[in-house]
Amino acid sequence: MKPKQAAVVLIAHGSRLEAANEEVRRLAVRLAERLGQTVIPAFLELASPSIPEGIDQALNGNPSEIKVLPYFLTQGRHVQEDIPKLLADKARAYPETPIRLLNYLGAEEAIVDCLAETARR
Amino acid sequence: MKPKQAAVVLIAHGSRLEAANEEVRRLAVRLAERLGQTVIPAFLELASPSIPEGIDQALNGNPSEIKVLPYFLTQGRHVQEDIPKLLADKARAYPETPIRLLNYLGAEEAIVDCLAETARR
Repeated sequence: MKPKQAAVVLIAHGSRLEAANEEVRRLAVRLAERLGQTVIPAFLELASPSIPEGIDQALNGNPSEIKVLPYFLTQGRHVQEDIPKLLADKARAYPETPIRLLNYLGAEEAIVDCLAETARR
Repeated sequence: MKPKQAAVVLIAHGSRLEAANEEVRRLAVRLAERLGQTVIPAFLELASPSIPEGIDQALNGNPSEIKVLPYFLTQGRHVQEDIPKLLADKARAYPETPIRLLNYLGAEEAIVDCLAETARR
């Protein structure tokens, strides 16, 4: 039996523009290739799968833990309240698998590096 | 006389939550320190300064050019239409200073690096 691996759920807001949701799904594919781990895209609203559905998909793979990565730039109500609440509900329903909420993207110091690199062009 | 420098305008969507707008303003300060250049935060809606006001602030410094950096994750209508239109209006009004629209953040390959680094924790 293979040792269990962590799974990643990449959470984005979701858009009425399907092209924007597709960008997130493509990003999840590239991140999965980079990490060598399952990365499931999930959306707070307006697109599928929802966050609970995305967590369910991740749980189906029987991961060692689920790492949740919010693809958000600023810490609004979604990052502070909505996402933690949805994850807490899932954690109560499936206590055997740890669900760990990581930093939202905008909180990462590397964002400054990335913007600086773009601005130097 | 000092040689002219480029100025950067960092454009975010803007939020009803003032704390989220403040995050963008703090990010502009950190980016300015990193680049050693003026970085002016500006908002598409819901916060000040607006994009035209931010461009005006940048023009007041008599820059060699203005680099516009959209702090957006996906290429929706704002990135594709609204921002280019506002910049084109300004470029017509001030043809002597080049205004250059750079990649929105989500289009940068470095975003995958940043997410991968977060997910490895």
